[in-house]
Amino acid sequence: MSVEAGRRVLLAARPVGEPKESDFRIEDMPVPAAGAGEMLLRTLWLSLDPYMRGRMSDAPSYATPVAIGQVMEGRTVSEVLSSNLEGFAAGDIVFSPNGWQTHAVSDGKGVRKIDPALAPVSTALGVLGMPGMTAYTGLLDIGRPQAGETVVVSAASGAVGSLVGQIAKLKGAKAIGIAGGPDKCRYVVDELGFDACIDHRAGDLPARLKAACPKGIDVYFENVGGAVFEAVFPLLNNFARVPVCGQIATYNSTEMPAGELRTSALTRAILTKRLTLRGFIVSDFASRQGDFLRDVSAWLREGRIKYREDVVDGLEKAPRALIGLLRGENFGKLLVRVAAGAR
Amino acid sequence: MSVEAGRRVLLAARPVGEPKESDFRIEDMPVPAAGAGEMLLRTLWLSLDPYMRGRMSDAPSYATPVAIGQVMEGRTVSEVLSSNLEGFAAGDIVFSPNGWQTHAVSDGKGVRKIDPALAPVSTALGVLGMPGMTAYTGLLDIGRPQAGETVVVSAASGAVGSLVGQIAKLKGAKAIGIAGGPDKCRYVVDELGFDACIDHRAGDLPARLKAACPKGIDVYFENVGGAVFEAVFPLLNNFARVPVCGQIATYNSTEMPAGELRTSALTRAILTKRLTLRGFIVSDFASRQGDFLRDVSAWLREGRIKYREDVVDGLEKAPRALIGLLRGENFGKLLVRVAAGAR
Repeated sequence: MSVEAGRRVLLAARPVGEPKESDFRIEDMPVPAAGAGEMLLRTLWLSLDPYMRGRMSDAPSYATPVAIGQVMEGRTVSEVLSSNLEGFAAGDIVFSPNGWQTHAVSDGKGVRKIDPALAPVSTALGVLGMPGMTAYTGLLDIGRPQAGETVVVSAASGAVGSLVGQIAKLKGAKAIGIAGGPDKCRYVVDELGFDACIDHRAGDLPARLKAACPKGIDVYFENVGGAVFEAVFPLLNNFARVPVCGQIATYNSTEMPAGELRTSALTRAILTKRLTLRGFIVSDFASRQGDFLRDVSAWLREGRIKYREDVVDGLEKAPRALIGLLRGENFGKLLVRVAAGAR
Repeated sequence: MSVEAGRRVLLAARPVGEPKESDFRIEDMPVPAAGAGEMLLRTLWLSLDPYMRGRMSDAPSYATPVAIGQVMEGRTVSEVLSSNLEGFAAGDIVFSPNGWQTHAVSDGKGVRKIDPALAPVSTALGVLGMPGMTAYTGLLDIGRPQAGETVVVSAASGAVGSLVGQIAKLKGAKAIGIAGGPDKCRYVVDELGFDACIDHRAGDLPARLKAACPKGIDVYFENVGGAVFEAVFPLLNNFARVPVCGQIATYNSTEMPAGELRTSALTRAILTKRLTLRGFIVSDFASRQGDFLRDVSAWLREGRIKYREDVVDGLEKAPRALIGLLRGENFGKLLVRVAAGAR
């Protein structure tokens, strides 16, 4: 192996509101060497996900923030270049939380091998990875859709939302998506097989959502918050379940959005309609990993679910791509191809 | 049996804000006669409960409202005066949803016999009745307190709250009450054995609640809403559970109270702290009736739980007593002794 230069992306400043490219710093680095009990990894694919906005802030959350001057956190699919670690050999393809960098030395913590024969390796970051498992556990363990019920999911063309609706359909429920723009809505209905998809940019979301859900909403898989949540809220049926997975609409907020809805109205509805609102992080359901991989791999093989990737080439494009993700500019699971030619 | 005059309380008008005595009408009635397949009941005890405020309104809720000119709904303990119904005989003591009246003819629907040897019959309306089962199921099936956790309950000296805290203690949790006034708080700690009780009328509830819960709050049993909910909210720990049972603070509201807390702040906390908020009505847990009666009867017999009744004499006092209940003026389970001398 020839010596090549490495590159990484650091957090340069805590964003105020929407992140700017100047909140990141891209720098070259020497490719590190693996010591005893370590291996050297080369990043093939980097996953970009909305939760990363939270790691850039030091507001209280469920995870510690990235420190200023540190490499941005991120999940990757990587290739083992050299290994002094039992169980891993050069050429292995692995899932690894390398962060935003071309190379990383790993002691194996959080790393697992991927079998490239089973599915394209990038799916370990999407439909067969954290986003897929988020959809699977949030929908099935909290949402618990029954045949004939109505499931609504926001960010419906995204990595999580697209799988939520497709699993809802597999369980016999009606799936209604909410997405931004006619192209995404068309894809959600025509390609993914949702029953309907409402464009939240086209105005009058409450009325159009109501028309699409004549029997109300039994499960609302919450990815975005804000105005979408407020449109869904009055349509929730008795005993509706709301897995709270994300709040993309508020991630860049410097103050809480005004909105019309008061907490007292929400808690009153929770009581009278016997709603369940439950927040979750995918790691809360770690014990379901085996079920998830078994079921979703099978559905993929059988062609019963589809996924879409939105690929950006080059690590230096990652900051701009994350900014776009938080604006809803991506279309499908957002990935950075870090190693040129990776497939 | 000599012919006696009956009396009943009708809903005269839908209250605007706090009910007034003029929203009720008290009228005499002839004692009805039981036909074939019916029995005649004499009301001994009438239960007054916060949910009754909801039945006086026609706002959407989980139950249909009482119509204007109809007898107010209510649960009673009654005596069978005469019976043409198999399984019931004169002299039997029964639980029956007679409503606010001295006598009622029943076809047996919703009626069950009470064994006066087991406990004072009035407990069928309190600790061994709907309020007790509300506490039992909401705490154990939704709140699920673990040993060492902190359980907070509002309206802590009331029919539901008093049992919530005592069961929490039996399960090894720390029980913190919130109640109105020093007498109630003293009772909650000294008689019921809670670890602490905060007087929400004494000012600075958030700071005093925080001091009483140095390890945060794992279960908040919500009876009142409003400012108490807002004081509890920032103290909720990760994975906290909030059984939403009541919202007494808002029942008389003509508009939603302003409050500081926005829905977006609430849903963000639901996500980052993985909270569960779940509304319930006791009838949702009907299948737990046997467990409830077995456990709470045993705890009563063993002297491990206590209860307190606040008795008002005479049906004509019921309207004023319900108005006081919604103001927090009662101290313990509020009952109307409808039949003079009933025990």
